[in-house]
Amino acid sequence: MDIRVICVGDELLTGDTVNTNLAFIGDRLAQLGLSLQSEICVPDDECCIIDALDFCAYADVVIIVGGLGPTVDDLTRPTVAKFLDRPLRLDPTVRDNIRAYLGARAATLPSDALDIQSQVPDGAQVMPNRNGTAPGLILRRGNTLWVLLPGPPRELIPMFNQEFLPVILPLARADWEAVTLHICGMPESAVEKLVRSTLGDANGIHLAFCIKNDNIMVRLSQLCSCRHENLEQAVKALRNAFGYHLIPPPHQTAAEYLGAILAERGLTVATAESCTGGGIAAALTDVPGASAWFPGALVTYANEWKTQLLGVPKQTMDTHGAVSEQTVHAMLDGLLSTYHTDLGIATSGIAGPSGGTPAKPVGTVVVGVAANKAWREVKTFHFNGLRDSIRARTASTAINLLLANLLNQQE
Amino acid sequence: MDIRVICVGDELLTGDTVNTNLAFIGDRLAQLGLSLQSEICVPDDECCIIDALDFCAYADVVIIVGGLGPTVDDLTRPTVAKFLDRPLRLDPTVRDNIRAYLGARAATLPSDALDIQSQVPDGAQVMPNRNGTAPGLILRRGNTLWVLLPGPPRELIPMFNQEFLPVILPLARADWEAVTLHICGMPESAVEKLVRSTLGDANGIHLAFCIKNDNIMVRLSQLCSCRHENLEQAVKALRNAFGYHLIPPPHQTAAEYLGAILAERGLTVATAESCTGGGIAAALTDVPGASAWFPGALVTYANEWKTQLLGVPKQTMDTHGAVSEQTVHAMLDGLLSTYHTDLGIATSGIAGPSGGTPAKPVGTVVVGVAANKAWREVKTFHFNGLRDSIRARTASTAINLLLANLLNQQE
Repeated sequence: MDIRVICVGDELLTGDTVNTNLAFIGDRLAQLGLSLQSEICVPDDECCIIDALDFCAYADVVIIVGGLGPTVDDLTRPTVAKFLDRPLRLDPTVRDNIRAYLGARAATLPSDALDIQSQVPDGAQVMPNRNGTAPGLILRRGNTLWVLLPGPPRELIPMFNQEFLPVILPLARADWEAVTLHICGMPESAVEKLVRSTLGDANGIHLAFCIKNDNIMVRLSQLCSCRHENLEQAVKALRNAFGYHLIPPPHQTAAEYLGAILAERGLTVATAESCTGGGIAAALTDVPGASAWFPGALVTYANEWKTQLLGVPKQTMDTHGAVSEQTVHAMLDGLLSTYHTDLGIATSGIAGPSGGTPAKPVGTVVVGVAANKAWREVKTFHFNGLRDSIRARTASTAINLLLANLLNQQE
Repeated sequence: MDIRVICVGDELLTGDTVNTNLAFIGDRLAQLGLSLQSEICVPDDECCIIDALDFCAYADVVIIVGGLGPTVDDLTRPTVAKFLDRPLRLDPTVRDNIRAYLGARAATLPSDALDIQSQVPDGAQVMPNRNGTAPGLILRRGNTLWVLLPGPPRELIPMFNQEFLPVILPLARADWEAVTLHICGMPESAVEKLVRSTLGDANGIHLAFCIKNDNIMVRLSQLCSCRHENLEQAVKALRNAFGYHLIPPPHQTAAEYLGAILAERGLTVATAESCTGGGIAAALTDVPGASAWFPGALVTYANEWKTQLLGVPKQTMDTHGAVSEQTVHAMLDGLLSTYHTDLGIATSGIAGPSGGTPAKPVGTVVVGVAANKAWREVKTFHFNGLRDSIRARTASTAINLLLANLLNQQE
């Protein structure tokens, strides 16, 4: 089934609004095994809207979002009516509904604002809008369904779910079934290599790879006409191949997975952060319920704070530098001995843009993880990129390193 | 100038990723007085990519984002090369650059991953990627510039700013001139009301409002044919009207502005964070050079840590709760007396999803800011929304509150 989306609105192309409607529609359809063929975003301009309608003219379903309001820059309704050669007529029932929705506010509106939104193209089916004024519209021409939906998400989302889906579902023949796996602590190309060597020719399974916050998302999909067991077997094989790198559902991030393991084992973790500046603590406390396993963090950005709070000897920093494995060892020592958690994470690095030296250029980062006296791993990394990206990669590397050690210990 | 964007990636159409790249590109171009004619989003599929290229074939500039990675579903490079009839050749310099970027990790990669990303279409100009492996590419055919950029924002954004803009700027004939102002610490509707009452009929100046991380961006634009002084006068009038709520350029965030003031006045600030979990420290240390004015933070998520590190009396928390103005006062007392900074920020709140009570529902947050014994402000807020959004609003509210107090003291 060829389903396409057209989003209409200047604000989407000037960067004033991020298009979350596309992600909402794509996600809802994917849950039903339907996929979008394309999306086009055009400004509030008749010629541009017509170009987009032309591009979609042979699809099965065309969903047109936005531009249904009462102001002169809302051009979707008359342009679609013109394109499909369906005259607009004022629908008194629609007008009454809008008036009822507005209640007392109706009196304050110019009456043509009401009239404009009450125009319905010949033969259109009206979808009532319970959260705004502009109704949705459905038109049929040939084999194509043309669907007009309002742009504000609080109007679009309930109308999509309550009015549009019941219309489209009987027509929809789910083409695809899909599973998304989240992998942490491996580079994208290594993930792909292992996926491919594990699945071999993959029996008609379509693969897609995507990076999100340093985790790799692998989507496996196949036509519904294939045997469902194919997909199940593929997921099982990948679970075996990736081991602890595969974040088990319902968790989607390494921090969520780490939190679940800590909660299950009754362990606590604290962080001692220099270059990440609280970023690891912030990532860990993004996880609901983190208070069960995360008592707190010491952000020791200044060297004096490393000494005062963690007991890092000034001499260690003078001799080896604040960014050194020796300093991170001392940070871990101080963290675990003074603050009594089971596990600790420590970081020190040069995030830039200044502060680099020939021996320790910007991007040099030391990450340490430890479980009291049981085990410890302290490693130096060299990350490329800008300040933001170096800090973000340090944080995700630290969480992945702790996760890997925890899961290795178990084996 | 007809500029179009093509975004390539299954994840954009399945709802797995919200397309923030389009908003970034639209915003950067709008700042330069350029506008986007359309955007098309297509899956990782050769036919769909070619349909999109066809749709854009008569534009002046076509920006194609994503699908440049090393995996087999990354089809943008070969498909564009085929469409423009430019054979792909392995470029040894590109290969060396990718190898240098990867450093020690290069050895762990399958060699074809390196080779694929080193392919360059005949006649293409290469834009180096300092934050990832895939380089950007620029091709000319007829009057059209075809530009290929990587999809991950941390690679796209610096390449767009540093490599692509210098190429396009000499070609661009700006139709619009525009100024963007950043306002902090005021709700959007109050910002809009004050802008409109200050500018009156606005003399042909077009206004747009946008919220970004709790700051309001106000964009003033006018046709280049208008008198330049109009825009200058409008900006001057708004500076007077908004006072310290207007973040002065070149700063774009309240944290950057705060950092500049602290550096100028020779002051230091530390944070004592509960519900924000290090988020304020992370926002402050996002600012380059933060070490000059930010020595560190105490993330006291557990009540025991509030007592151990900040000396908050257990009785205060037992009597008034950990989320109370009394506890935040005690956190500030401990922070300033023990850690000797000039200024302090403290937070405690219920970010949810659980932990709310009828008296203190989820979203109840206490924020305190203080300058040793000179002044102090501790306030309770009620934020709506989910955990993420409550935490982010608490962090930006805390920074704005400190900024407002610092700038008020000066007056």
